[in-house]
Amino acid sequence: MSFRTIEWRDNKVIMIDQTRLPAEEVYNEYTDFQSVAQAIRGMVVRGAPAIGIAAAMGVALGAREIIADSFDTFYRQLENVCDVIGRTRPTAVNLFWGLERMKRVALQHKELDLNSIRELLKAEAISIETEDLAICKEIGRHGAALVKEGASILTHCNAGGLATAGYGTALGVIRGAHEAGKGIRVFADETRPWLQGARLTAWELMKDSIPVTLISDNMAGWLMRTGQIDFCVVGADRIAANGDTANKIGTYSVAVLAKENRIPFYVAAPISTLDLKLANGDLIPIEERASEEVTQIKGIQIAPEGVKVRNPAFDVTPARYITGIITEKGVVRGDYERELKALVGQ
Amino acid sequence: MSFRTIEWRDNKVIMIDQTRLPAEEVYNEYTDFQSVAQAIRGMVVRGAPAIGIAAAMGVALGAREIIADSFDTFYRQLENVCDVIGRTRPTAVNLFWGLERMKRVALQHKELDLNSIRELLKAEAISIETEDLAICKEIGRHGAALVKEGASILTHCNAGGLATAGYGTALGVIRGAHEAGKGIRVFADETRPWLQGARLTAWELMKDSIPVTLISDNMAGWLMRTGQIDFCVVGADRIAANGDTANKIGTYSVAVLAKENRIPFYVAAPISTLDLKLANGDLIPIEERASEEVTQIKGIQIAPEGVKVRNPAFDVTPARYITGIITEKGVVRGDYERELKALVGQ
Repeated sequence: MSFRTIEWRDNKVIMIDQTRLPAEEVYNEYTDFQSVAQAIRGMVVRGAPAIGIAAAMGVALGAREIIADSFDTFYRQLENVCDVIGRTRPTAVNLFWGLERMKRVALQHKELDLNSIRELLKAEAISIETEDLAICKEIGRHGAALVKEGASILTHCNAGGLATAGYGTALGVIRGAHEAGKGIRVFADETRPWLQGARLTAWELMKDSIPVTLISDNMAGWLMRTGQIDFCVVGADRIAANGDTANKIGTYSVAVLAKENRIPFYVAAPISTLDLKLANGDLIPIEERASEEVTQIKGIQIAPEGVKVRNPAFDVTPARYITGIITEKGVVRGDYERELKALVGQ
Repeated sequence: MSFRTIEWRDNKVIMIDQTRLPAEEVYNEYTDFQSVAQAIRGMVVRGAPAIGIAAAMGVALGAREIIADSFDTFYRQLENVCDVIGRTRPTAVNLFWGLERMKRVALQHKELDLNSIRELLKAEAISIETEDLAICKEIGRHGAALVKEGASILTHCNAGGLATAGYGTALGVIRGAHEAGKGIRVFADETRPWLQGARLTAWELMKDSIPVTLISDNMAGWLMRTGQIDFCVVGADRIAANGDTANKIGTYSVAVLAKENRIPFYVAAPISTLDLKLANGDLIPIEERASEEVTQIKGIQIAPEGVKVRNPAFDVTPARYITGIITEKGVVRGDYERELKALVGQ
């Protein structure tokens, strides 16, 4: 890939600014945890795995900012840092998973001096990023095996290199199939209101010379019905114990339309996206975002002033619509409750 | 209603400019048929019934422009006028229905002097408009009877006063239910790429103080799944003999999602939208529009330069997804082939 989504360099966090793509490829530098939290909330960085990495790196920055003379004081402030970062976006579980992992590292080394702990936290955040890239490549390998020669693949939102440390989950499957020489092509839902498909997926696939065609979200069903889609793959923000999957708003509709047209519908996600504490998808909190995302595009008003708006950022696809969940440890199908538990237990 | 969609006044055609709503309420004047054809193609006027009216008024303008000294010469040129107007938009059958109706008037009065024929054509065009308003009110009356107290109604695109002489087809049903005091509220799909829902439906419902909430197209399925939608109603651009219905892209998806969630899905359209010559929806021509409608909003680029795009303006909803078709002569259900034929035969 010819861009870096997020990176720790010289005690700064560097992130490509996803609010400015595709018009401008700008890399922002962050030196404090508050501004990383703001970047997550403002979607400079988005996509469940990338949010997890950004959260961890934000904690590592925050650890450097803390002034303390005992572990207990340090840890109380570290928890505050985690709370601030944790309040940015409620749906993607990777955010909380990243924060928990960082807190655990601190607790496991409480006997060390604070500077050593700060270094270990930095190393952990970088590990989360490095692991994520390897995980995405494994997801891509497992997923590519499911894709037929010459397939037309529909994806929704951006579960790509930009949503991860690189390579992507859903786009990891697509990259895997492309690299295996399967001659695939991609239809990208533009993904209103934030246009992750138009702005990010189209951009990163074009950068990698993978054939991509952009459509409005409401065209996907018609392309399925007229036999122009062979395979659907999307990412996930949180997967409940029974396989119900929260992902970008519109995913549920894609899944229903795929089922109606007998097209396989896969979710691609790392195991860190599983939230087995939640029995089913009804328990997943759904973020509702500002109405301006719907009524304005790049600051230009496209709807009547003062119109009432709903803007849920995610929906939940019941497991029965999901052909399989592609993880770094293999593809899960059928009895998700049992299979997902077994996967995590491995 | 507090606006006029289209009107013949002082030998001019006056149309509200739907490309500039909701930001500006501007009325354009047209004095020649070529500019009316351009207005139809450029979607200054859109919506199947309104296109039919605009086409007829365009022919009436064209008739005034023709220089001829015999009926045959006059009629040949009138056919040219119709051909120019007929080449603007292929899917809505009302366009061709309006043109045929105008040609028939000319042929039926070939024995009259040309100025009398020109006056009769003008009167016919005005009649088409007047009739359309009455038809929409009948559609509204029949449709309102299907709506339960306090229903949340989803509509897609704009099948409103702006798509007709006034009152609307799908929005006619909504206006009918609202005027009957049913305490309904409306969810309007924004309807990418042209944003008819965000720009037109939201605008005209707010003007009439009918409660409306704007959503992205990809939110409709999730609202259905979470029990927030009770009833769906859309317009139509062409209905085949078996009930298959062409309408704005995304309609098919709404219908499938409604069926999956056991929500009634109705089509509201005048009988002029029926095309019983076509056995089924596969035979309806689907207009593909410019890629800039998808890649730009108000001239601002929202996707990578040079990205490949599909932009079908319509899709076809198979009759089996349609709970009923609401016409000015009543509601048709079940065996559409037989029922639609009977309706036209009345």
